[in-house]
Amino acid sequence: MINNMKNYLLIFSLFLLTFACEESAVVIEKTTIADAQTLKEAIEKAQPGDELILKNGVYKDIQIKFTAQGEEGKPITLKAETPGEVFIEGASNLQLGGDYLVVEGLHFRNGYTPSRQVIRFKVSDNAVANHSKVTNCVIENFTQPDRDVKDHWIELWGRHNEVSHNYITGKSNYGPTIMVMLKGNEHIRNFHQIVNNHFGPRPRKGGPHGETMQIGDSGTSMTPSHTNVENNLFERCNGEVEIISSKSNYNVFKNNVFFESEGSLVLRHGNYATIDGNIFIGNDNSKFIGGIRVINTGHWITNNYFYKLKGETFRAPLAVMNGIPKSPQNRYNQVTDAVIAYNSFVDCKTPFHFSVGSNVSQSEVLPKSEIRSARPTRTIVANNVLYNETPFDFPIENYDEVDGVLFKNNYSNSANKSKVQPEGLITSSMQVEKITEALKVAKVNSSDIYKGFDFETIKTDIFGTERTPENNTVGAIINATNHKELYDTSNYGTTWYNGEKIEAVTKTIAVSNAAELSQAFAAANAGDTIRLNPGVYDITETLPVTKNITVTSADKANKAQLQFTSKASAFTLNPNGVLHMEDVSLQGDHTQAVFKTLDKNMRSAYGLWLNNTEISNFSEVLEVSKGSFADTISIKNSIIKDCARGIQLNKETNDKGDYNSEFVYVENNSFTNVKANVLNYYRGGYDESTIGGNLVFKGNTVTQSGQDDDENILIKTRGIVNVEFADNTFKNNPVKFTAILWGEKGQKPENNIVQNSGKIEVVQNLKLKLVY
Amino acid sequence: MINNMKNYLLIFSLFLLTFACEESAVVIEKTTIADAQTLKEAIEKAQPGDELILKNGVYKDIQIKFTAQGEEGKPITLKAETPGEVFIEGASNLQLGGDYLVVEGLHFRNGYTPSRQVIRFKVSDNAVANHSKVTNCVIENFTQPDRDVKDHWIELWGRHNEVSHNYITGKSNYGPTIMVMLKGNEHIRNFHQIVNNHFGPRPRKGGPHGETMQIGDSGTSMTPSHTNVENNLFERCNGEVEIISSKSNYNVFKNNVFFESEGSLVLRHGNYATIDGNIFIGNDNSKFIGGIRVINTGHWITNNYFYKLKGETFRAPLAVMNGIPKSPQNRYNQVTDAVIAYNSFVDCKTPFHFSVGSNVSQSEVLPKSEIRSARPTRTIVANNVLYNETPFDFPIENYDEVDGVLFKNNYSNSANKSKVQPEGLITSSMQVEKITEALKVAKVNSSDIYKGFDFETIKTDIFGTERTPENNTVGAIINATNHKELYDTSNYGTTWYNGEKIEAVTKTIAVSNAAELSQAFAAANAGDTIRLNPGVYDITETLPVTKNITVTSADKANKAQLQFTSKASAFTLNPNGVLHMEDVSLQGDHTQAVFKTLDKNMRSAYGLWLNNTEISNFSEVLEVSKGSFADTISIKNSIIKDCARGIQLNKETNDKGDYNSEFVYVENNSFTNVKANVLNYYRGGYDESTIGGNLVFKGNTVTQSGQDDDENILIKTRGIVNVEFADNTFKNNPVKFTAILWGEKGQKPENNIVQNSGKIEVVQNLKLKLVY
Repeated sequence: MINNMKNYLLIFSLFLLTFACEESAVVIEKTTIADAQTLKEAIEKAQPGDELILKNGVYKDIQIKFTAQGEEGKPITLKAETPGEVFIEGASNLQLGGDYLVVEGLHFRNGYTPSRQVIRFKVSDNAVANHSKVTNCVIENFTQPDRDVKDHWIELWGRHNEVSHNYITGKSNYGPTIMVMLKGNEHIRNFHQIVNNHFGPRPRKGGPHGETMQIGDSGTSMTPSHTNVENNLFERCNGEVEIISSKSNYNVFKNNVFFESEGSLVLRHGNYATIDGNIFIGNDNSKFIGGIRVINTGHWITNNYFYKLKGETFRAPLAVMNGIPKSPQNRYNQVTDAVIAYNSFVDCKTPFHFSVGSNVSQSEVLPKSEIRSARPTRTIVANNVLYNETPFDFPIENYDEVDGVLFKNNYSNSANKSKVQPEGLITSSMQVEKITEALKVAKVNSSDIYKGFDFETIKTDIFGTERTPENNTVGAIINATNHKELYDTSNYGTTWYNGEKIEAVTKTIAVSNAAELSQAFAAANAGDTIRLNPGVYDITETLPVTKNITVTSADKANKAQLQFTSKASAFTLNPNGVLHMEDVSLQGDHTQAVFKTLDKNMRSAYGLWLNNTEISNFSEVLEVSKGSFADTISIKNSIIKDCARGIQLNKETNDKGDYNSEFVYVENNSFTNVKANVLNYYRGGYDESTIGGNLVFKGNTVTQSGQDDDENILIKTRGIVNVEFADNTFKNNPVKFTAILWGEKGQKPENNIVQNSGKIEVVQNLKLKLVY
Repeated sequence: MINNMKNYLLIFSLFLLTFACEESAVVIEKTTIADAQTLKEAIEKAQPGDELILKNGVYKDIQIKFTAQGEEGKPITLKAETPGEVFIEGASNLQLGGDYLVVEGLHFRNGYTPSRQVIRFKVSDNAVANHSKVTNCVIENFTQPDRDVKDHWIELWGRHNEVSHNYITGKSNYGPTIMVMLKGNEHIRNFHQIVNNHFGPRPRKGGPHGETMQIGDSGTSMTPSHTNVENNLFERCNGEVEIISSKSNYNVFKNNVFFESEGSLVLRHGNYATIDGNIFIGNDNSKFIGGIRVINTGHWITNNYFYKLKGETFRAPLAVMNGIPKSPQNRYNQVTDAVIAYNSFVDCKTPFHFSVGSNVSQSEVLPKSEIRSARPTRTIVANNVLYNETPFDFPIENYDEVDGVLFKNNYSNSANKSKVQPEGLITSSMQVEKITEALKVAKVNSSDIYKGFDFETIKTDIFGTERTPENNTVGAIINATNHKELYDTSNYGTTWYNGEKIEAVTKTIAVSNAAELSQAFAAANAGDTIRLNPGVYDITETLPVTKNITVTSADKANKAQLQFTSKASAFTLNPNGVLHMEDVSLQGDHTQAVFKTLDKNMRSAYGLWLNNTEISNFSEVLEVSKGSFADTISIKNSIIKDCARGIQLNKETNDKGDYNSEFVYVENNSFTNVKANVLNYYRGGYDESTIGGNLVFKGNTVTQSGQDDDENILIKTRGIVNVEFADNTFKNNPVKFTAILWGEKGQKPENNIVQNSGKIEVVQNLKLKLVY
């Protein structure tokens, strides 16, 4: 009966609407909605031009299927009553299907999608979005509880869709943040606009599949995409080695700013991309911050500005790779017909890295179809400027012959002492104008410009000044007067939110016994310090680390003695939990680990920092679960003794390039009677482009340990790419190997003393399973 | 001094020209040229609008570098005084470099290029042709003396060039007739026009690299080409399995006629081709005549008309291949997103072959990177018409599951008893209108048209009638009233030549002794018959076969006895030599072969037809050189005895898919005491797409042979794809194997009697070297 009523109303409305249409103009319906059911009904009734307004408030566990048909000039809009005052939480997502749909002003937080997408431009194969947009929205930490569960936050399908003015941050699970899907004729030649967004920090993921954006996949390397990525800010997008992975043809990357992002804009598959007028700011902050990596055919890389980038090889300011001859579709095609022109490299010591990924030397451990021996060819490097405030004489690094690259009219203010000595790289004095701290314009006293084939299609400089025969110059900048601030978050994202948090006031909580300590762990806010008065603490419950917290002894000379009889572990490490511990003594009863992550749902990274701490009588120092990931584990100046096992970061064994911690520092500690290995830090799977795992093992003394290790190895680092192994002393450890290092990655033991502790072996080429 | 004079003249001319230009209109210089030097000078001086006219006559050993700069609307033209009266002969070629150049009316014959191209749209890397054309020219039998020497007759470089109204025929050596080069940004997006040409017969080559047209190569599979191939006639282009090999993106094949051409239009590499409105005429003439073969992504195959094609698998009317997962660049990508719509198949029993090339069963002999297991996906087959005058109930052949193909609104006048039973293939009665012999319009009584994604872009039918919602139909033809003749050579090629020869009057020459016979061989014209009077002929000189000639005995009951003491061989087989011999007895002295090709320069195919002939006391029956190629070797009803070796077609051992004879018929003969193998017919190299070598070995009796064979095999057919082996009797041949057949190619012995002659073995999967 109610259904019938509804039908009558619907028919009546339609009648009214028809009538209205016949009258003259379209009636724009504004419907205010406060719940899922009303929204569903409103969507069903929506007509071109209508606005569906979500009342301010929290919408929990809402799955919106926005299926409707707008028209050009008369979109159907789903918007927040007040932008930023409508919160989508819990198990929620949004799908759009139809033409000319707009979604505005929503804030996704405190939840995650129950499907594989937070926002998808497709409801079903028969309801794909076209000419539709999502704008002025926020997606913040809307990440899966389990890092290994895959999703995309925004999945583009169809054609002519827009993702603009959004702020998107905090994805820590498997899968690119934005994914453009190209499978099917309905989705090619899409001309999507991904513009004016602010991509806030994406934390390190540890392994692949942490891109901020991916356009297509290896199966679409032949597909015309024409996606336009313009005027976005990528701020500390550290998910993996590829910030953007372009895997289709004719994509455009224009005027974006990459700010201290640990990765590169990578032309992974597909061809004929345009990368024009982008700004890469490294601030010399990390060797992980890269620029542009080039693979495949026909890319034009012009007018870009690179500032203080110190990455190398895969993360070089400009990395031009070697290909595999007749490469399989998902591997590396040769670089051909690339044009690299009018770029400026400022304070990047070695901008050019050629034949990156050359691995002819690894023929013995890799199949032939993995050997990157095809050098870049028919490639032009012209009209670029290299300026180093402190001159540096090695502008080019090469990993193979550079015989297919034509250098023309490139200028550097330093000498060129690189092995590669092209005539077209000219040392010249420069006049430098410092516009802002990061923006330096280096002018060369030469009006000689190389005019390559089709160079007349490079019409402007980085800031839009026209390049004319009368007014042209080498480098990215003709004229800086109309420059914008290189890094100004207010130019990007929403009108109402940019993720910046107000600094909270922190406090110190003093405790004197186990009960107070337990209470303090519950009560502390992020940033607080718990100060332990001297004494013995008998702790029977596990202490949960759920936020950034510091635990320290009030009297360094008289460390608090924490004695644990708790089950499983002394401390549990939760997502976002970062424990700093200093000057404390921890004792177990041999039944528990000191630190243990949750068994699952480690949705985001944790951290552990120990200094001047004593650990004894535990089963493990650190035990982790498979999906867990630490940004940093740092153990320094501490004493560890009488434990069954040491630091165990060895559960990511899917052999797909993932690993359990990005950085591990173990320095100046003493390990005694740690029965199995002292450290087991593992990364499996051959994947040259995920350059992960970073260990510093330095200045430690290890004695009487390793006797129970099943492989007879004391320090295990299998598959970890970056290892520093120096200044340690190993005495009387009954093992076969102290450690096995990976020669091909440049690992070598330095200044270690090894007595009666097996030997340190360096294996040049490690045999690993292929990831793909 | 003379040079100085020339300079003065040049300066003076320039002055005049400048003056003329300033006056008002451009002076169009018409210069008549009669020799290479004058031509060179005229080219150097040529100005926009000029015409350089080659005087009628023969130009021998001339290498023309046509480097000049025309302008839009004012081309520089190099033309024959009278089209077709200027002959380019000997070691000659033509190169064009510059903009707006035109070449008209030349006839290339009696020679070959000394370089790798007859006509090249490039003089050097710095002088590439753009907006230039070659039109109304003939290239006829301008083929390399050595079949293994590679060249292209027309090589396109640059952009916007045109090859139109030419007649091109007779290339028998290695290399595509027309090649479009795409390596380098200067040559991509070329929009070349290859239009209105008549591609006359190209003989069988035996192995790969005999395409009539190739656009790019496996290294340009990602390159946008946009070459337009429209309104050409391909007449008996039999060079190899690919008439056209498209190896780049966005090429268009429109309104071409493929007439009895033994091959297919193959989308070998590259994607998004358009194949619209073409006509394929097989006339049930041969299983070698194919249609369209589909590999890769996004092709649109619409409005094509297929008539009487009986090819299968790789040569099916429509072959849709399986791909290799993550295929290497030069192998087979999966078919995805193909649209096959509005085509008409008339009297093609089984039009659709899906998953052609599926070879999962061969995993044991092929590497993983060769296994084509990726089935077509996201592929639409819609609105097609299948009409068989004699109904045939198996319209679909499949070599794997057909699970990725959507069938919609296809109609057949036969039932569908194929394994694949799509709902979208509907049996329906049809009204058939016979417009011409080959053009039948089958109409379905249904106005139900499938409207797939972007189907509205299919704007017309095959003959240009607009497809509108009101006037549309399934199949290629809405309206035949404005059809053209399907096969009318006068619509194509030059205004003055189409290669048709006047039938010559043939004669019979009677001879009675060796001297007369020798004289007759020299004097005979093609088509003549030499009739041998009875008697014994003592022949001391080798008889050269240089044309089509028949040798027969005047009295069949009393065969002429030819007794040879000539060196090396009784007969030499020369290019174009075709010997028919009937009712003759040939005896050697054990020192010579009966038939032997030239050692080199076998520029075109030869043929050998023996019937009712007796051969004895020779070293070999047939001995060939590596580069030689027979179209057909036919030995029937003959007696062969007391020879050291039999028919030796085993010199093409480069293992790249080449072989020494296309067809070999050995039927109803008696072989006795042929000491090594009776037949050695060899093809080496795994290359699934060159389907070569055809043997019928039937009804023969072989005795006391094979005793000297080094491999202990009597009949050797290694690598030959098509073998019929039936009704033979083998007695007392001391070998291990009578023959080894190839099971995977469907070979099996039938009804043979084998007594004391080893055994006939069938090997399922032959191990072969990979070709590429």
